[in-house]
Amino acid sequence: MTPFTVEIVTVGNEILSGRVVNTNASWIAERVTKLGGVVKRITTTSDDVEECSAAIREALARKPKLIITTGGLGPTFDDRTLESIANALGVDLDLNEEALRMLEEKYRGKVTPPRLKMAKIPRGGKPLYNPVGTAPGCLIEVGDTIIVALPGVPSEMKAMFEAHVEPLILRLPRSAYASRLIRVSAIEESSLAPMIEEVMKKCKAVYVKSRLKSNGETYIEVEVSSRALTTEEAEENAAEACRLLKELMVKAGAEVQEL
Amino acid sequence: MTPFTVEIVTVGNEILSGRVVNTNASWIAERVTKLGGVVKRITTTSDDVEECSAAIREALARKPKLIITTGGLGPTFDDRTLESIANALGVDLDLNEEALRMLEEKYRGKVTPPRLKMAKIPRGGKPLYNPVGTAPGCLIEVGDTIIVALPGVPSEMKAMFEAHVEPLILRLPRSAYASRLIRVSAIEESSLAPMIEEVMKKCKAVYVKSRLKSNGETYIEVEVSSRALTTEEAEENAAEACRLLKELMVKAGAEVQEL
Repeated sequence: MTPFTVEIVTVGNEILSGRVVNTNASWIAERVTKLGGVVKRITTTSDDVEECSAAIREALARKPKLIITTGGLGPTFDDRTLESIANALGVDLDLNEEALRMLEEKYRGKVTPPRLKMAKIPRGGKPLYNPVGTAPGCLIEVGDTIIVALPGVPSEMKAMFEAHVEPLILRLPRSAYASRLIRVSAIEESSLAPMIEEVMKKCKAVYVKSRLKSNGETYIEVEVSSRALTTEEAEENAAEACRLLKELMVKAGAEVQEL
Repeated sequence: MTPFTVEIVTVGNEILSGRVVNTNASWIAERVTKLGGVVKRITTTSDDVEECSAAIREALARKPKLIITTGGLGPTFDDRTLESIANALGVDLDLNEEALRMLEEKYRGKVTPPRLKMAKIPRGGKPLYNPVGTAPGCLIEVGDTIIVALPGVPSEMKAMFEAHVEPLILRLPRSAYASRLIRVSAIEESSLAPMIEEVMKKCKAVYVKSRLKSNGETYIEVEVSSRALTTEEAEENAAEACRLLKELMVKAGAEVQEL
């Protein structure tokens, strides 16, 4: 089974200036992976409408099943993600009655102009209720792709992913995913390379990735992952590959520990 | 003065699976910003050569002054960033004598095939010495753009940025940059919006960005930044805008604290 594909578009100058680390993207990526999808690309773009809509247009052209944007839904002048999506799709940004009702509830009727801005969504889109904050999200289908716009505040983004995106993903055809981590030392990464290739040749449905870690002490982290029809099968594949890999590594004198 | 532009391309499935947070990109972004450059886009792509070289080709087409890649320089089968760069540029990947000498020094002459792989760089490129690890980096000029490939291991990436990229940036025409942070509470972000617009209208060379924070307690972080010809001027611009902004916020009953 081909897993569904996802692109994440993070909108915000604060990521591009290095002030904020993009933990939103890694949180979403981890969730999508565990739910059986494949994140193909993560793009961080500025708040500028031209640049943001270009990133969205390019993502659309690659035809992922889902594009998840984060950030740029708030009331300030540079919260322009929905305008960018509208621009990318060549549709208008309309005042949405349902979104307006959400804001009226949040602000007890006092919808000032900066607040009203949050009720404008791309034509054809559906507002998504924000259970934690005020700004509604938005879902819009474009051909076979679904664009979901989530806020940038992590607590709001997570709550809305769980409320709106997860149920949507659970209805998609998807594969099961399993992964294991091994910590290896007393061996060079260049000596591990042929063992990894051997295991990947023998264990077909498995992907093995090593990365050198050096936080105080230096060691190699090896991740063995598998996609399969069932979780059981994916776990079995990963376990079998791990067994084989550990055997080869120990034979070569490495110190091995499964995490 | 137009500041020089930078794109960061992070290569690695471990970022796309959410296993690793992209702190490399934020570290580079912060350094570039403080050195007077503007990061226009951050792209995370998989280890796949087709996907990685597409991301590099697209970045090149946007004509930034610098493209900095991280990751994919090691000895394993999926370390293919240099191959991807060669592919994007339509040039061959050659065994480079200088890179080979670097590896011979690191491995005391024992350059096995997986190690030899790290000496292959795109034709026309120049290997960059890695003072911390083994894999050399690479610098290649393409028209007006310079591509610099750095390793993914954070300690190696940082050392090589400082050894090779910073000196390069210091020779570019660049602006000075300054920023200040204000922490605001007892006010809604939607009420801050018109104040931010007022300040940005009055203080021309300044950019003001607010973001809602909610880690336990909820507050708004406002960042005031400025680019100018000299650091002194940039700092003055930011300070003046901060003064004005705080005045407006306090008048509206907000609690304000400069960080």
